[in-house]
Amino acid sequence: MKDPLIISLDGMGGDGAPDIVVKGAALASERLPTAAFLLYGDEAKLAPLVQAEPALRGRVDIRHTDQVIGSSDKPSHALRKGKKSSMRLAIDAVRDGEAHCVVSAGNTGALMAMSMFSLRTLDGIDRPAISSIFPSMKGTTCMLDLGANVECDSDNLVQFAVMGEVFVRTVLDKQRPTVGLLNVGVEELKGRDEVKQAAAKLRELDLPIDFKGFVEGDDIGKGTVDVIVTDGFTGNVALKTIEGTSKVITTFLKDAFSTNWLTKACYLFALRPLNILRRRVDPRLYNGAVFLGLNGIAVKSHGGTDGFGFSHAIGVAANMAKNDFINRMRDDIESLSMDANPNNNEKGGN
Amino acid sequence: MKDPLIISLDGMGGDGAPDIVVKGAALASERLPTAAFLLYGDEAKLAPLVQAEPALRGRVDIRHTDQVIGSSDKPSHALRKGKKSSMRLAIDAVRDGEAHCVVSAGNTGALMAMSMFSLRTLDGIDRPAISSIFPSMKGTTCMLDLGANVECDSDNLVQFAVMGEVFVRTVLDKQRPTVGLLNVGVEELKGRDEVKQAAAKLRELDLPIDFKGFVEGDDIGKGTVDVIVTDGFTGNVALKTIEGTSKVITTFLKDAFSTNWLTKACYLFALRPLNILRRRVDPRLYNGAVFLGLNGIAVKSHGGTDGFGFSHAIGVAANMAKNDFINRMRDDIESLSMDANPNNNEKGGN
Repeated sequence: MKDPLIISLDGMGGDGAPDIVVKGAALASERLPTAAFLLYGDEAKLAPLVQAEPALRGRVDIRHTDQVIGSSDKPSHALRKGKKSSMRLAIDAVRDGEAHCVVSAGNTGALMAMSMFSLRTLDGIDRPAISSIFPSMKGTTCMLDLGANVECDSDNLVQFAVMGEVFVRTVLDKQRPTVGLLNVGVEELKGRDEVKQAAAKLRELDLPIDFKGFVEGDDIGKGTVDVIVTDGFTGNVALKTIEGTSKVITTFLKDAFSTNWLTKACYLFALRPLNILRRRVDPRLYNGAVFLGLNGIAVKSHGGTDGFGFSHAIGVAANMAKNDFINRMRDDIESLSMDANPNNNEKGGN
Repeated sequence: MKDPLIISLDGMGGDGAPDIVVKGAALASERLPTAAFLLYGDEAKLAPLVQAEPALRGRVDIRHTDQVIGSSDKPSHALRKGKKSSMRLAIDAVRDGEAHCVVSAGNTGALMAMSMFSLRTLDGIDRPAISSIFPSMKGTTCMLDLGANVECDSDNLVQFAVMGEVFVRTVLDKQRPTVGLLNVGVEELKGRDEVKQAAAKLRELDLPIDFKGFVEGDDIGKGTVDVIVTDGFTGNVALKTIEGTSKVITTFLKDAFSTNWLTKACYLFALRPLNILRRRVDPRLYNGAVFLGLNGIAVKSHGGTDGFGFSHAIGVAANMAKNDFINRMRDDIESLSMDANPNNNEKGGN
């Protein structure tokens, strides 16, 4: 990937847009000294915000549009009626080769639908998946799909395994990532049919993947494998269960230090370690869900994040672009297609 | 339910059996002054343990058997070959009216298979479900199914909703529990077909249930509803994701206080609030997964728990027995059957 790196931004997506988008670009630009931004949205709102960030001077090209995708717009409606929206134009910039990647904190369903329509899926991939990383005892765990496909067959799951493996290897720089299939037990006979079939295929196909078999929900936190593959229904429930559980425990922790004057006094002494904990589980550090399987790099930021969180989503997209992710993914998918269909010509025998 | 309350125990199930079972019975007996126990297992091992617990004097009837179900025995094998096992005999005591409820920390699959075979499912219930409670911001949330059925249709989910509602109302003593269906979004159009169909049925049927529609993974921790209904695959993943996430955060918390000599010093000052937290999220307090939908009360303790944890599982079973749970469940299921099949006779019209 040649410099400068061009990053396309949906200036109007997210609860705190456009402020968090511009703030995020400013923070990211400090870590990406050669990056430049295409910023789509309402120029009257965006220009003064960009003006106020010295780090962005001469690095932002604001491209005006009035149209905005609302957070509750249906994907089908967004596709039909949002052709001039900040989200769609930001995606189209990647399709047209003007930008290397796109980041939006807007409506997930609309972003996925538009990205699929505009960028198209890679040859050999039936459905794209949403992927993100989670803190674990051993560092981080990557999980997909987190909600793009509520039902998946075994081929989808196999494709997700390949995509997740490439992502962790190229972008997170792990030499030989391990891959597991999320199930309700580690024994071979347990679980749903499509999960068992996917496991059989991953064992049989001669893929360059270190497949470790089944894992369970607690393996996300344990970091048993680098990539956890599941359907979008289960993955979405797991993602939100992690968020909910974190919230319960940190709230209980806060409650514990507020119990009485004695525990409140303890709080003053515990500030330093509690801040260490807070920084380690800060969800903003893990912000940036990747749409894998598309013919271009699209990253979804959490809608409720701030500028710091948005800058991390930009970082994920930039990292993918710098590592030539799409081409490396394309190569691996091709080898998958060849391996997965050795019997293509055997059906004519009846 | 008349005194004395008779509780049947699988003396040999669980990693720490038989010690944790006897210890658990002793601890529970202090909270249940009129309870007596039938204790199944190896008398040579059980007798001295019971002897050592003054609280159990005169309250335990040890019933000897050599046969034990192993933690990795297949359910089908346990059913065929385990007819004289401590687990099976403990269940049969409920079937035969000798005991009001049974508790085991043994192999979940075997316990479910044997309970279904011996106790049978209630009329109107197609499949039993595993249910448990989780700490939430508002107290506790009950969730089912946690792993008995990896695939469920909409009728199963509707039955789970009724069973969970009765459980929370009668055993946890909530006046009018709220019920939600676990999904990947709260909008009516989102999610899998069986979940959408179950929602439609729960809205249409004239059940005495306060159905609140869809909930998401983070609602388990938020306590948005009292009962969360899902299939056994998703529920099992959510359950273990909660366990894994709790472990990650508490480990990170420990790490934070061990960072350097300064944070280690802080730890001494933070001991009191940290102990308050530890007591509040102690998984032993939530031990005791209930098999709902059976013609008798069967409770599964976590296999790795200690005596304190096992005593809580006994508490859950005792509470169900004292509240005449099975009869109250039977009444509600009957009303469900009548409501769910109003069109039974309409099919002959062609």
